[in-house]
Amino acid sequence: MRREQITDSFKSIQDSICNALELCDGKAKFEEDLWEHTAGGGGRTRVIQNGQVFEKGGVNFSAVEGELPPVIADNLKLDSTKYFATGVSIVIHPISPRVPIIHMNIRYFELEDGTSWFGGGIDLTPIYVVDEDAQYFHLALKDTCDRFDQSFYPKFKKKADDYFYIPHRNETRGVGGVFFDQLRPGEEFTKEMLFDFTCAIGNTFAPTYTEIVRRNQDLEFGQDQTLWQEIRRGRYVEFNLVYDRGTKFGLETSGRIESILMSLPSRVGWHYNHSPEENSEEAYTLTKLVKGIDWTKS
Amino acid sequence: MRREQITDSFKSIQDSICNALELCDGKAKFEEDLWEHTAGGGGRTRVIQNGQVFEKGGVNFSAVEGELPPVIADNLKLDSTKYFATGVSIVIHPISPRVPIIHMNIRYFELEDGTSWFGGGIDLTPIYVVDEDAQYFHLALKDTCDRFDQSFYPKFKKKADDYFYIPHRNETRGVGGVFFDQLRPGEEFTKEMLFDFTCAIGNTFAPTYTEIVRRNQDLEFGQDQTLWQEIRRGRYVEFNLVYDRGTKFGLETSGRIESILMSLPSRVGWHYNHSPEENSEEAYTLTKLVKGIDWTKS
Repeated sequence: MRREQITDSFKSIQDSICNALELCDGKAKFEEDLWEHTAGGGGRTRVIQNGQVFEKGGVNFSAVEGELPPVIADNLKLDSTKYFATGVSIVIHPISPRVPIIHMNIRYFELEDGTSWFGGGIDLTPIYVVDEDAQYFHLALKDTCDRFDQSFYPKFKKKADDYFYIPHRNETRGVGGVFFDQLRPGEEFTKEMLFDFTCAIGNTFAPTYTEIVRRNQDLEFGQDQTLWQEIRRGRYVEFNLVYDRGTKFGLETSGRIESILMSLPSRVGWHYNHSPEENSEEAYTLTKLVKGIDWTKS
Repeated sequence: MRREQITDSFKSIQDSICNALELCDGKAKFEEDLWEHTAGGGGRTRVIQNGQVFEKGGVNFSAVEGELPPVIADNLKLDSTKYFATGVSIVIHPISPRVPIIHMNIRYFELEDGTSWFGGGIDLTPIYVVDEDAQYFHLALKDTCDRFDQSFYPKFKKKADDYFYIPHRNETRGVGGVFFDQLRPGEEFTKEMLFDFTCAIGNTFAPTYTEIVRRNQDLEFGQDQTLWQEIRRGRYVEFNLVYDRGTKFGLETSGRIESILMSLPSRVGWHYNHSPEENSEEAYTLTKLVKGIDWTKS
């Protein structure tokens, strides 16, 4: 399986997601920046801003080569430090606090010595948790996973709970999703199968998210909901800057900063000691930001 | 020199700074939260919000005991892991983009085996750099340093340039100030002298900052300046969450989150690929966010 086949498929996934999101927004269009990586390769950063539905969002494709910084190579216990990495990475911040933030990432990583693996993740971050939407989201992911291996959804759902988690807040970032990393071809799964699975996750994004947008985009909201949105976005920033491996990897390997940090929202706030009123919608949401909820059961 | 002498003096510095900032604001008052640390000790978090001059600010005192997490003990190459730490920590975000953000921290650290050191730092982060104010600020710090040792200002000014720096942006956070750490009593300096110096830095804060506020607080500003302020505040958040050692230490030692993150502003924004117009005030500011400027020379 050649690199080009993987990068071509990832580019197509980027294209189809951008089309779907533009249709969904109905006004704003993606703007594209092509860039090159100093050590080799480059990317297509596509950003949508100030739409009818989406306030700020990015759908990035990149395919870069380089040398791993010694710290990272040591952490991964690798001798070989020359790498090739390609992926599609998405974060969307809608205007309305009634529409969830979403993130998706699929990636392929290859070392000089031929070692390679796939990774990816998708998670939904509602400002206000709606049980039916969280269930719909998880059922769609389970459906995609089950087409490949029955063990995938339960395993990768748990990994998402653990990964999209903010230890210093003791909160999950949202209602989770699936997360997988270092899926290496071998006896159990062929490279083709892992590639197909990774692409299938990528292709689950657009129909699932646009349906969740459609369900919520016309709901009303006011200043209180916007304040809560800015606070929850603050948590998103905390997660991305303090814990997210992709962001750290980007900052440490001197990636293109504006592409790496496009995940940060255009309107955020931190308010000292804010805590929601008892029995409020906000308080309800907090009870759902915990690990281990089986969203597939109604 | 007993711990109580140090904590008492740090508390007095907190008191006098809060008084000076309330006078300066003319409307808002600090609200105090007393808290206890699970492993021992506690703190007085004081927050000022929605004033005439200050949008959000905190002046914290804490004195806590605990066990260093193994990672930190290894990093510092320490065998002894039981610690006592006390300090005063300040971040102020003014409403007006014409008034700089300021940060100050003084701290004392002691290990079970009797090893102890002082540390501290103060740095000014103008949204718009005004050369005369940066000079005034640095001359005040130099004046305080020179009363103790002629080597202090040049050494600690350089350390501040290196510390208050955002590598992934290749920008300093602001116009710097002074930064010192692990100042250990020994042949060169007695514990009393280092303590007096640390307190002197603490006492330089209020008169110097309130003068800079006074000079700028009545200047006009509009939406463009507010946008630039939100962008610069974004850089402040990036620095604090990605690089700041105090924040990292707090998050890793499970400190009181609302006190640690009170440094984050209540209104922030990230805008994709923003870059100031040529020859604008904003572009001028960027030329000054570099290491190595000798602000004491006019």
